[in-house]
Amino acid sequence: MTKKLLGIDLGGTTIKFGILTLDGQVQEKWAIETNILEGGKHIVPDIVASLKHRLALYGLTKDDFVGIGMGSPGAVDREKKTVTGAFNLNWADTQEVGSVIEREVGIPFAIDNDANVAALGERWVGAGANNPDVVFVTLGTGVGGGVIADGNLIHGVAGAGGEIGHIIVEPEDGFECTCGNKGCLETVASATGVVRVARHLAEEYEGDSLIKAAIDNGEAVSSKDIFQAAAQGDKFADSVVEKVSYYLGLATANISNILNPDSVVIGGGVSAAGEFLRSRVENYFTKYAFPQVRRSTKVKIAELGNDAGIIGAASLASQFIK
Amino acid sequence: MTKKLLGIDLGGTTIKFGILTLDGQVQEKWAIETNILEGGKHIVPDIVASLKHRLALYGLTKDDFVGIGMGSPGAVDREKKTVTGAFNLNWADTQEVGSVIEREVGIPFAIDNDANVAALGERWVGAGANNPDVVFVTLGTGVGGGVIADGNLIHGVAGAGGEIGHIIVEPEDGFECTCGNKGCLETVASATGVVRVARHLAEEYEGDSLIKAAIDNGEAVSSKDIFQAAAQGDKFADSVVEKVSYYLGLATANISNILNPDSVVIGGGVSAAGEFLRSRVENYFTKYAFPQVRRSTKVKIAELGNDAGIIGAASLASQFIK
Repeated sequence: MTKKLLGIDLGGTTIKFGILTLDGQVQEKWAIETNILEGGKHIVPDIVASLKHRLALYGLTKDDFVGIGMGSPGAVDREKKTVTGAFNLNWADTQEVGSVIEREVGIPFAIDNDANVAALGERWVGAGANNPDVVFVTLGTGVGGGVIADGNLIHGVAGAGGEIGHIIVEPEDGFECTCGNKGCLETVASATGVVRVARHLAEEYEGDSLIKAAIDNGEAVSSKDIFQAAAQGDKFADSVVEKVSYYLGLATANISNILNPDSVVIGGGVSAAGEFLRSRVENYFTKYAFPQVRRSTKVKIAELGNDAGIIGAASLASQFIK
Repeated sequence: MTKKLLGIDLGGTTIKFGILTLDGQVQEKWAIETNILEGGKHIVPDIVASLKHRLALYGLTKDDFVGIGMGSPGAVDREKKTVTGAFNLNWADTQEVGSVIEREVGIPFAIDNDANVAALGERWVGAGANNPDVVFVTLGTGVGGGVIADGNLIHGVAGAGGEIGHIIVEPEDGFECTCGNKGCLETVASATGVVRVARHLAEEYEGDSLIKAAIDNGEAVSSKDIFQAAAQGDKFADSVVEKVSYYLGLATANISNILNPDSVVIGGGVSAAGEFLRSRVENYFTKYAFPQVRRSTKVKIAELGNDAGIIGAASLASQFIK
């Protein structure tokens, strides 16, 4: 029988699991709630219990699997298979993850950062089309990313490779970032960043706009509201999308001037705006990309949605194929 | 007997050759003039003749060598071992390089772009200290570079990886670049770029300065003159160095936010300014780098000078070690 891969996407709300074929097709998937109580001490046992339960349910044993891969928030030690400082899991201190799962389940285990793992997923069977050079940018609560260059996920000397959200796109007078710097891409292109750009531009906008009115009235406005209003012709909202697209176009062009990837894939919640966002980002990308890069690197929207995590995690386990 | 490597650095003025040990020590080196007459048709035969002559002189045969590596200007096809569009060699059309040298000399041959090859050299035995993640930026007539990530030289999908000179550092109102874009790093940090920044700042500077006076008088001023004057206390020249350092610090920080290399190594003629330049670039790098990157990635000055080309070229030949 052909062996399979197991992928686990550990998040602050749910833990997603997938059983995949060696070529990346999801055969089974399920999810459990993340129990972050008591310092997150239930998380690893819950994962082990869920794996054992499901394998029994599907009539599978450890011998049916090549390996388990997992994506985790926090600082991941790939060698020791531990996680430190994953605050949304209440894992402040270093947690033994891989050693426990390997011992309990008996399948080889690999782990990496969740943004890197999502990048691997999109690169493998998503918009990256298994190309050796793909950069993934995820626009969510924050802006994260992953760089795959010459077939390898790039971690860098201290594991901070792929910190695409912290590319500086506004070197002077930029907004303050949670990282302590100013002008990071994350401050203007995350879900909250888009709203921040809107608030800033609202101060000077003088035309009619439901979005501007809502902002001025102190109502809650989301990045989704702004993209929807822009698509419906709200000129103020349109100017916000244009500014965000400028920042994303500049950042993706500069990434590409350095790496000339086959594609820069944009994912995460904000990317739900789809072609409306992509085409505008591409306009600025085209303006700022070196000619040879402009002709060869593509700007794409991610294709895998929430499955990127389990698929990329499973791809980590491919390293155990003999 | 231990085998050796041959490195060739093909430039528009000279062709440099080196015989190296497998661990990158230069044992012999020599150079010949580049004869670019008649469409550069003498270049490859001249290389072959010089190799044969020197090998005989040193009492060496093809069996003493693992391979030959070469760095070339222009667009290099690494598979076919050809070069196209190397205009400073008068090589507009595609030139057979590797096939001829392999046939005539009988040693396996590898070729890559000259900036990439210099990056490999600095990474191997220069400032990069053989780390798997090193970015090289060369500030000369233009600004070039090479990216080594996870041990691999990154070419990208169309070979335009490492076009660090075309990172956009001035997205609005930047100077025009030879590539057709505006605001590229090359327009402000190459030897001519430094002078361009000086001319621009001179328009608004009102204090005393020999450099400003020379510019206003239409005298020829070089980037070297500007760095020397700045080091001697010329405040105008100092403001030019500061502005150039800002651009370099922003670019190196953004490269590092994406890749988190062990070091960004600055080479080329402008880097002769040494620590005076490095420390200022580092100031801006520190300002714009993500905290974890700031603590782990170093800004360094290149160490190999003109030998980077032959050393990096020789390292290309290491791939033939069995």
